[in-house]
Amino acid sequence: MSPQALKASKGEETRAQILDAAVQQASKGGFESITIGSLAERTGLSKSGLFAHFGSRTDLQIAALDEAARRFTQAVFLPAMKLPRGLPRLRAIFQGWIDWPEHGRLRGCPMQGASAEFDDLPGPMRDAVVERQLQLAGELAKAVTMAAESGELCADTDAKQFVFEMTGIVLACYSTQRLLGDARSSSRALVAFERLVQDHLAPAAKRDSRPAAPRR
Amino acid sequence: MSPQALKASKGEETRAQILDAAVQQASKGGFESITIGSLAERTGLSKSGLFAHFGSRTDLQIAALDEAARRFTQAVFLPAMKLPRGLPRLRAIFQGWIDWPEHGRLRGCPMQGASAEFDDLPGPMRDAVVERQLQLAGELAKAVTMAAESGELCADTDAKQFVFEMTGIVLACYSTQRLLGDARSSSRALVAFERLVQDHLAPAAKRDSRPAAPRR
Repeated sequence: MSPQALKASKGEETRAQILDAAVQQASKGGFESITIGSLAERTGLSKSGLFAHFGSRTDLQIAALDEAARRFTQAVFLPAMKLPRGLPRLRAIFQGWIDWPEHGRLRGCPMQGASAEFDDLPGPMRDAVVERQLQLAGELAKAVTMAAESGELCADTDAKQFVFEMTGIVLACYSTQRLLGDARSSSRALVAFERLVQDHLAPAAKRDSRPAAPRR
Repeated sequence: MSPQALKASKGEETRAQILDAAVQQASKGGFESITIGSLAERTGLSKSGLFAHFGSRTDLQIAALDEAARRFTQAVFLPAMKLPRGLPRLRAIFQGWIDWPEHGRLRGCPMQGASAEFDDLPGPMRDAVVERQLQLAGELAKAVTMAAESGELCADTDAKQFVFEMTGIVLACYSTQRLLGDARSSSRALVAFERLVQDHLAPAAKRDSRPAAPRR
Protein backbone atom coordinates (compact mmCIF):
# COMPACT_ATOMS: atom_id res chain seq x y z
CA MET A 1 0.00 0.00 0.00
CA SER A 2 1.37 3.44 -0.92
CA PRO A 3 1.97 5.93 1.91
CA GLN A 4 -0.92 8.07 0.60
CA ALA A 5 -3.31 5.12 0.53
CA LEU A 6 -2.19 4.08 3.99
CA LYS A 7 -2.86 7.57 5.32
CA ALA A 8 -6.31 7.68 3.69
CA SER A 9 -7.16 4.27 5.09
CA LYS A 10 -6.04 5.34 8.58
CA GLY A 11 -8.22 8.44 8.23
CA GLU A 12 -11.23 6.33 7.28
CA GLU A 13 -10.62 4.10 10.26
CA THR A 14 -10.49 7.03 12.68
CA ARG A 15 -13.64 8.51 11.16
CA ALA A 16 -15.43 5.16 11.57
CA GLN A 17 -14.25 4.96 15.18
CA ILE A 18 -15.61 8.45 15.91
CA LEU A 19 -18.95 7.68 14.27
CA ASP A 20 -19.28 4.42 16.17
CA ALA A 21 -18.77 6.27 19.45
CA ALA A 22 -21.24 8.96 18.33
CA VAL A 23 -23.99 6.45 17.47
CA GLN A 24 -23.48 4.63 20.77
CA GLN A 25 -23.74 7.91 22.63
CA ALA A 26 -26.84 9.03 20.69
CA SER A 27 -28.62 5.75 21.37
CA LYS A 28 -28.12 6.34 25.07
CA GLY A 29 -28.26 10.08 25.72
CA GLY A 30 -29.63 11.44 22.44
CA PHE A 31 -27.93 13.34 19.63
CA GLU A 32 -27.91 16.54 21.65
CA SER A 33 -25.52 14.83 24.07
CA ILE A 34 -22.97 14.62 21.22
CA THR A 35 -20.37 17.34 21.44
CA ILE A 36 -16.84 17.52 20.07
CA GLY A 37 -15.66 17.46 23.70
CA SER A 38 -17.71 14.43 24.79
CA LEU A 39 -16.54 12.44 21.77
CA ALA A 40 -12.92 13.43 22.24
CA GLU A 41 -13.18 12.01 25.74
CA ARG A 42 -14.98 8.88 24.55
CA THR A 43 -12.54 8.10 21.74
CA GLY A 44 -9.33 9.32 23.34
CA LEU A 45 -8.71 11.59 20.33
CA SER A 46 -7.86 15.28 20.58
CA LYS A 47 -10.52 17.91 19.93
CA SER A 48 -8.50 19.25 17.01
CA GLY A 49 -8.31 15.71 15.64
CA LEU A 50 -12.11 15.52 15.76
CA PHE A 51 -12.45 18.92 14.09
CA ALA A 52 -10.23 17.66 11.27
CA HIS A 53 -12.87 15.01 10.51
CA PHE A 54 -16.02 17.02 11.23
CA GLY A 55 -16.01 20.77 10.79
CA SER A 56 -18.67 21.47 13.41
CA ARG A 57 -20.80 19.84 16.05
CA THR A 58 -23.82 19.91 13.72
CA ASP A 59 -21.82 18.19 10.96
CA LEU A 60 -20.87 15.52 13.47
CA GLN A 61 -24.47 15.07 14.66
CA ILE A 62 -25.74 14.73 11.09
CA ALA A 63 -22.93 12.32 10.22
CA ALA A 64 -23.91 10.23 13.27
CA LEU A 65 -27.54 10.25 12.13
CA ASP A 66 -26.45 9.09 8.68
CA GLU A 67 -24.33 6.37 10.22
CA ALA A 68 -27.35 5.18 12.26
CA ALA A 69 -29.49 5.21 9.10
CA ARG A 70 -26.80 3.25 7.23
CA ARG A 71 -26.71 0.62 9.98
CA PHE A 72 -30.49 0.43 10.01
CA THR A 73 -30.51 -0.21 6.25
CA GLN A 74 -27.84 -2.83 6.65
CA ALA A 75 -29.52 -4.57 9.59
CA VAL A 76 -33.13 -4.35 8.41
CA PHE A 77 -33.55 -3.71 4.69
CA LEU A 78 -30.60 -5.56 3.14
CA PRO A 79 -31.43 -8.98 4.68
CA ALA A 80 -35.11 -8.46 3.80
CA MET A 81 -34.20 -7.73 0.17
CA LYS A 82 -32.96 -11.30 -0.16
CA LEU A 83 -36.50 -12.54 0.46
CA PRO A 84 -39.22 -12.54 -2.21
CA ARG A 85 -41.13 -9.27 -2.64
CA GLY A 86 -44.43 -9.21 -0.82
CA LEU A 87 -45.32 -10.59 2.60
CA PRO A 88 -42.09 -12.48 3.30
CA ARG A 89 -40.09 -9.31 2.76
CA LEU A 90 -42.56 -7.11 4.64
CA ARG A 91 -42.57 -9.45 7.63
CA ALA A 92 -38.76 -9.57 7.62
CA ILE A 93 -38.58 -5.78 7.61
CA PHE A 94 -40.94 -5.59 10.57
CA GLN A 95 -39.06 -8.24 12.55
CA GLY A 96 -35.74 -6.60 11.74
CA TRP A 97 -37.05 -3.20 12.84
CA ILE A 98 -38.16 -4.60 16.19
CA ASP A 99 -34.87 -6.40 16.73
CA TRP A 100 -32.34 -3.95 15.41
CA PRO A 101 -31.45 -1.92 18.52
CA GLU A 102 -30.58 -5.14 20.33
CA HIS A 103 -28.74 -6.67 17.38
CA GLY A 104 -26.84 -3.43 16.85
CA ARG A 105 -25.85 -3.43 20.53
CA LEU A 106 -27.63 -0.10 20.95
CA ARG A 107 -29.59 1.10 23.96
CA GLY A 108 -32.47 2.15 21.72
CA CYS A 109 -33.26 3.10 18.14
CA PRO A 110 -31.31 6.32 17.46
CA MET A 111 -33.67 7.27 14.61
CA GLN A 112 -36.78 7.19 16.79
CA GLY A 113 -34.91 8.89 19.58
CA ALA A 114 -33.88 11.65 17.19
CA SER A 115 -37.51 12.16 16.13
CA ALA A 116 -38.63 12.75 19.71
CA GLU A 117 -35.58 14.88 20.40
CA PHE A 118 -35.73 17.27 17.45
CA ASP A 119 -39.44 17.48 16.64
CA ASP A 120 -39.54 20.86 18.36
CA LEU A 121 -36.01 22.12 17.68
CA PRO A 122 -35.87 23.82 14.27
CA GLY A 123 -32.53 23.70 12.50
CA PRO A 124 -30.40 21.57 10.18
CA MET A 125 -30.54 18.53 12.48
CA ARG A 126 -34.34 18.56 12.58
CA ASP A 127 -34.40 18.90 8.77
CA ALA A 128 -32.06 15.92 8.50
CA VAL A 129 -34.27 13.82 10.81
CA VAL A 130 -37.43 14.71 8.86
CA GLU A 131 -35.74 13.85 5.56
CA ARG A 132 -34.63 10.44 6.82
CA GLN A 133 -37.98 9.62 8.43
CA LEU A 134 -39.81 10.49 5.19
CA GLN A 135 -37.35 8.32 3.31
CA LEU A 136 -37.98 5.42 5.71
CA ALA A 137 -41.75 5.87 5.42
CA GLY A 138 -41.36 5.84 1.64
CA GLU A 139 -39.33 2.61 1.69
CA LEU A 140 -41.86 0.97 3.99
CA ALA A 141 -44.77 2.08 1.81
CA LYS A 142 -42.98 0.59 -1.19
CA ALA A 143 -42.70 -2.77 0.59
CA VAL A 144 -46.43 -2.65 1.45
CA THR A 145 -47.35 -1.73 -2.12
CA MET A 146 -45.29 -4.67 -3.43
CA ALA A 147 -47.23 -7.00 -1.12
CA ALA A 148 -50.45 -5.65 -2.65
CA GLU A 149 -49.05 -6.01 -6.18
CA SER A 150 -48.02 -9.59 -5.46
CA GLY A 151 -51.68 -10.31 -4.67
CA GLU A 152 -51.01 -11.15 -1.02
CA LEU A 153 -52.49 -7.97 0.43
CA CYS A 154 -55.73 -6.45 -0.88
CA ALA A 155 -55.27 -4.32 -3.97
CA ASP A 156 -56.89 -1.35 -2.22
CA THR A 157 -54.55 -1.45 0.81
CA ASP A 158 -53.77 2.10 1.94
CA ALA A 159 -49.98 1.84 2.13
CA LYS A 160 -49.57 5.07 4.13
CA GLN A 161 -52.14 3.97 6.69
CA PHE A 162 -50.43 0.57 6.91
CA VAL A 163 -47.06 2.25 7.50
CA PHE A 164 -48.60 4.58 10.12
CA GLU A 165 -49.91 1.58 12.06
CA MET A 166 -46.72 -0.44 11.62
CA THR A 167 -44.73 2.51 12.98
CA GLY A 168 -47.04 2.79 15.98
CA ILE A 169 -46.49 -0.86 16.84
CA VAL A 170 -42.71 -0.39 16.73
CA LEU A 171 -42.92 2.76 18.88
CA ALA A 172 -45.06 0.96 21.48
CA CYS A 173 -42.58 -1.90 21.47
CA TYR A 174 -39.52 0.32 21.97
CA SER A 175 -41.28 2.39 24.62
CA THR A 176 -42.53 -0.51 26.74
CA GLN A 177 -39.20 -2.30 26.37
CA ARG A 178 -37.00 0.60 27.38
CA LEU A 179 -39.14 2.35 29.98
CA LEU A 180 -41.06 -0.51 31.54
CA GLY A 181 -38.64 -3.35 30.77
CA ASP A 182 -41.62 -5.38 29.56
CA ALA A 183 -40.29 -8.76 28.38
CA ARG A 184 -43.45 -9.31 26.32
CA SER A 185 -42.98 -6.18 24.16
CA SER A 186 -41.64 -8.03 21.11
CA SER A 187 -44.26 -10.75 21.19
CA ARG A 188 -47.03 -8.16 21.62
CA ALA A 189 -45.62 -6.26 18.66
CA LEU A 190 -45.66 -9.40 16.51
CA VAL A 191 -49.27 -10.15 17.48
CA ALA A 192 -50.25 -6.59 16.56
CA PHE A 193 -48.41 -6.76 13.25
CA GLU A 194 -49.99 -10.09 12.32
CA ARG A 195 -53.43 -8.62 13.03
CA LEU A 196 -52.53 -5.72 10.71
CA VAL A 197 -51.45 -8.15 7.99
CA GLN A 198 -54.46 -10.46 8.42
CA ASP A 199 -56.87 -7.51 8.16
CA HIS A 200 -55.37 -6.57 4.81
CA LEU A 201 -54.94 -10.02 3.28
CA ALA A 202 -56.37 -10.46 -0.16
CA PRO A 203 -59.15 -13.08 -0.09
CA ALA A 204 -57.15 -15.41 -2.33
CA ALA A 205 -54.14 -15.25 0.01
CA LYS A 206 -56.01 -16.24 3.14
CA ARG A 207 -55.25 -19.93 2.90
CA ASP A 208 -51.60 -20.22 3.85
CA SER A 209 -50.82 -16.76 5.04
CA ARG A 210 -49.13 -17.47 8.35
CA PRO A 211 -45.43 -16.69 8.66
CA ALA A 212 -43.34 -19.73 7.71
CA ALA A 213 -41.06 -20.00 10.72
CA PRO A 214 -41.84 -17.73 13.62
CA ARG A 215 -38.62 -16.57 15.27
CA ARG A 216 -38.31 -16.50 19.04
CA MET B 1 -60.86 35.96 54.38
CA SER B 2 -58.44 35.89 57.33
CA PRO B 3 -54.88 37.12 56.72
CA GLN B 4 -53.62 33.52 57.13
CA ALA B 5 -56.12 32.17 54.61
CA LEU B 6 -55.27 34.98 52.20
CA LYS B 7 -51.58 34.16 52.48
CA ALA B 8 -52.24 30.45 51.94
CA SER B 9 -54.39 31.20 48.93
CA LYS B 10 -51.74 33.49 47.46
CA GLY B 11 -49.19 30.72 48.00
CA GLU B 12 -51.39 28.23 46.15
CA GLU B 13 -51.76 30.67 43.29
CA THR B 14 -48.01 31.17 42.96
CA ARG B 15 -47.45 27.42 43.10
CA ALA B 16 -50.03 26.92 40.34
CA GLN B 17 -48.38 29.63 38.27
CA ILE B 18 -44.98 27.93 38.61
CA LEU B 19 -46.40 24.52 37.72
CA ASP B 20 -48.18 25.93 34.69
CA ALA B 21 -44.91 27.41 33.43
CA ALA B 22 -43.13 24.12 34.19
CA VAL B 23 -45.64 22.01 32.23
CA GLN B 24 -45.49 24.40 29.27
CA GLN B 25 -41.72 24.21 29.30
CA ALA B 26 -41.68 20.40 29.61
CA SER B 27 -44.08 20.01 26.69
CA LYS B 28 -41.64 21.99 24.55
CA GLY B 29 -38.12 21.23 25.70
CA GLY B 30 -38.61 18.22 27.99
CA PHE B 31 -38.51 17.91 31.77
CA GLU B 32 -34.73 18.04 31.78
CA SER B 33 -35.00 21.62 30.50
CA ILE B 34 -36.74 22.55 33.78
CA THR B 35 -34.38 24.19 36.22
CA ILE B 36 -35.05 26.53 39.12
CA GLY B 37 -33.24 29.22 37.10
CA SER B 38 -35.19 28.74 33.86
CA LEU B 39 -38.51 28.84 35.73
CA ALA B 40 -37.52 31.90 37.74
CA GLU B 41 -36.91 33.61 34.42
CA ARG B 42 -40.14 32.33 32.91
CA THR B 43 -42.35 33.31 35.85
CA GLY B 44 -40.55 36.48 36.93
CA LEU B 45 -40.18 35.07 40.46
CA SER B 46 -36.95 34.98 42.42
CA LYS B 47 -34.96 31.76 42.67
CA SER B 48 -35.38 31.81 46.45
CA GLY B 49 -39.15 32.23 45.94
CA LEU B 50 -39.12 29.09 43.78
CA PHE B 51 -37.08 27.20 46.35
CA ALA B 52 -39.68 28.12 48.97
CA HIS B 53 -42.26 26.17 46.94
CA PHE B 54 -40.08 23.32 45.70
CA GLY B 55 -37.10 22.20 47.73
CA SER B 56 -35.07 20.95 44.78
CA ARG B 57 -35.03 20.74 41.02
CA THR B 58 -36.09 17.08 41.17
CA ASP B 59 -39.05 17.97 43.41
CA LEU B 60 -40.06 20.59 40.87
CA GLN B 61 -39.72 18.16 37.95
CA ILE B 62 -41.82 15.52 39.71
CA ALA B 63 -44.42 18.13 40.70
CA ALA B 64 -44.60 19.21 37.03
CA LEU B 65 -45.05 15.58 35.97
CA ASP B 66 -47.87 15.22 38.49
CA GLU B 67 -49.46 18.41 37.25
CA ALA B 68 -49.32 17.08 33.67
CA ALA B 69 -50.87 13.79 34.83
CA ARG B 70 -53.61 15.71 36.68
CA ARG B 71 -54.44 17.71 33.55
CA PHE B 72 -54.46 14.55 31.48
CA THR B 73 -56.95 12.97 33.88
CA GLN B 74 -59.08 16.08 33.79
CA ALA B 75 -58.98 16.42 30.00
CA VAL B 76 -59.29 12.76 29.07
CA PHE B 77 -60.66 10.53 31.84
CA LEU B 78 -63.15 12.78 33.63
CA PRO B 79 -65.22 13.63 30.52
CA ALA B 80 -65.12 9.96 29.47
CA MET B 81 -66.41 8.90 32.90
CA LYS B 82 -69.70 10.66 32.15
CA LEU B 83 -70.30 8.24 29.29
CA PRO B 84 -71.60 4.70 29.81
CA ARG B 85 -68.96 2.05 30.62
CA GLY B 86 -67.88 0.08 27.62
CA LEU B 87 -67.24 1.21 24.07
CA PRO B 88 -68.60 4.77 24.37
CA ARG B 89 -66.22 5.45 27.26
CA LEU B 90 -63.29 3.65 25.62
CA ARG B 91 -63.75 5.60 22.38
CA ALA B 92 -63.97 8.87 24.31
CA ILE B 93 -60.75 8.09 26.15
CA PHE B 94 -58.98 7.38 22.88
CA GLN B 95 -60.28 10.54 21.21
CA GLY B 96 -59.39 12.61 24.28
CA TRP B 97 -55.89 11.15 24.37
CA ILE B 98 -55.31 12.09 20.72
CA ASP B 99 -56.68 15.60 21.23
CA TRP B 100 -55.34 16.53 24.62
CA PRO B 101 -52.01 18.20 23.76
CA GLU B 102 -53.84 20.57 21.42
CA HIS B 103 -56.74 21.17 23.82
CA GLY B 104 -54.31 21.76 26.68
CA ARG B 105 -52.42 24.28 24.52
CA LEU B 106 -49.32 22.12 24.83
CA ARG B 107 -46.67 21.53 22.19
CA GLY B 108 -46.84 17.79 22.79
CA CYS B 109 -47.88 15.24 25.39
CA PRO B 110 -45.53 15.79 28.36
CA MET B 111 -46.14 12.25 29.65
CA GLN B 112 -44.98 10.59 26.42
CA GLY B 113 -42.13 13.06 26.16
CA ALA B 114 -41.05 12.14 29.68
CA SER B 115 -41.06 8.45 28.79
CA ALA B 116 -38.67 8.96 25.89
CA GLU B 117 -36.57 11.36 27.95
CA PHE B 118 -36.06 9.29 31.09
CA ASP B 119 -36.19 5.70 29.84
CA ASP B 120 -32.42 5.56 30.10
CA LEU B 121 -31.78 7.95 33.00
CA PRO B 122 -32.10 6.08 36.31
CA GLY B 123 -33.25 8.15 39.27
CA PRO B 124 -36.32 9.45 41.08
CA MET B 125 -37.72 11.13 37.96
CA ARG B 126 -37.53 7.93 35.91
CA ASP B 127 -39.21 6.04 38.79
CA ALA B 128 -41.99 8.66 38.84
CA VAL B 129 -42.49 8.35 35.07
CA VAL B 130 -42.65 4.55 35.24
CA GLU B 131 -45.15 4.69 38.09
CA ARG B 132 -47.45 7.05 36.20
CA GLN B 133 -47.19 5.14 32.93
CA LEU B 134 -48.08 1.88 34.71
CA GLN B 135 -51.00 3.65 36.35
CA LEU B 136 -52.18 4.94 32.97
CA ALA B 137 -51.84 1.47 31.41
CA GLY B 138 -53.86 0.08 34.34
CA GLU B 139 -56.65 2.64 33.87
CA LEU B 140 -56.76 1.95 30.15
CA ALA B 141 -56.85 -1.81 30.71
CA LYS B 142 -59.74 -1.28 33.12
CA ALA B 143 -61.70 0.59 30.45
CA VAL B 144 -61.03 -2.21 27.94
CA THR B 145 -62.08 -4.88 30.46
CA MET B 146 -65.32 -2.99 31.12
CA ALA B 147 -66.06 -3.02 27.38
CA ALA B 148 -65.59 -6.79 27.43
CA GLU B 149 -67.78 -7.13 30.54
CA SER B 150 -70.48 -5.03 28.90
CA GLY B 151 -70.56 -7.61 26.11
CA GLU B 152 -69.41 -5.16 23.44
CA LEU B 153 -65.89 -6.55 23.09
CA CYS B 154 -65.20 -10.28 23.04
CA ALA B 155 -65.00 -11.83 26.49
CA ASP B 156 -61.50 -13.14 25.75
CA THR B 157 -60.09 -9.74 24.74
CA ASP B 158 -56.49 -9.43 25.95
CA ALA B 159 -56.73 -6.04 27.66
CA LYS B 160 -52.96 -5.58 27.92
CA GLN B 161 -52.49 -6.33 24.23
CA PHE B 162 -55.33 -3.93 23.41
CA VAL B 163 -53.68 -1.19 25.50
CA PHE B 164 -50.30 -1.88 23.88
CA GLU B 165 -51.80 -1.38 20.43
CA MET B 166 -53.86 1.65 21.48
CA THR B 167 -50.69 3.24 22.88
CA GLY B 168 -48.82 2.58 19.65
CA ILE B 169 -51.51 4.35 17.64
CA VAL B 170 -51.27 7.40 19.90
CA LEU B 171 -47.46 7.43 19.69
CA ALA B 172 -47.57 7.23 15.88
CA CYS B 173 -50.10 10.07 15.86
CA TYR B 174 -48.04 12.35 18.11
CA SER B 175 -44.84 11.54 16.24
CA THR B 176 -46.18 12.17 12.72
CA GLN B 177 -47.99 15.30 13.91
CA ARG B 178 -45.05 16.91 15.65
CA LEU B 179 -42.15 15.85 13.48
CA LEU B 180 -43.72 15.63 10.04
CA GLY B 181 -46.62 18.04 10.55
CA ASP B 182 -48.88 15.46 8.94
CA ALA B 183 -52.42 16.88 8.95
CA ARG B 184 -53.88 13.39 8.52
CA SER B 185 -52.35 12.02 11.74
CA SER B 186 -55.55 12.22 13.80
CA SER B 187 -57.76 10.70 11.14
CA ARG B 188 -55.24 7.90 10.56
CA ALA B 189 -55.20 7.27 14.30
CA LEU B 190 -58.98 7.01 14.40
CA VAL B 191 -59.02 4.57 11.47
CA ALA B 192 -56.43 2.43 13.26
CA PHE B 193 -58.35 2.52 16.53
CA GLU B 194 -61.63 1.56 14.85
CA ARG B 195 -59.89 -1.40 13.23
CA LEU B 196 -58.64 -2.42 16.68
CA VAL B 197 -62.17 -2.14 18.10
CA GLN B 198 -63.82 -3.95 15.17
CA ASP B 199 -61.36 -6.84 15.45
CA HIS B 200 -62.34 -7.33 19.08
CA LEU B 201 -66.09 -6.82 18.83
CA ALA B 202 -68.21 -9.53 20.37
CA PRO B 203 -70.32 -11.23 17.67
CA ALA B 204 -73.54 -9.97 19.26
CA ALA B 205 -72.29 -6.36 19.22
CA LYS B 206 -71.41 -6.29 15.55
CA ARG B 207 -74.73 -4.85 14.41
CA ASP B 208 -74.59 -1.23 15.53
CA SER B 209 -71.02 -0.87 16.63
CA ARG B 210 -69.96 2.25 14.78
CA PRO B 211 -69.27 5.38 16.80
CA ALA B 212 -72.41 7.48 17.19
CA ALA B 213 -71.19 10.90 16.11
CA PRO B 214 -67.67 11.10 14.72
CA ARG B 215 -65.99 14.34 15.81
CA ARG B 216 -63.99 16.35 13.34
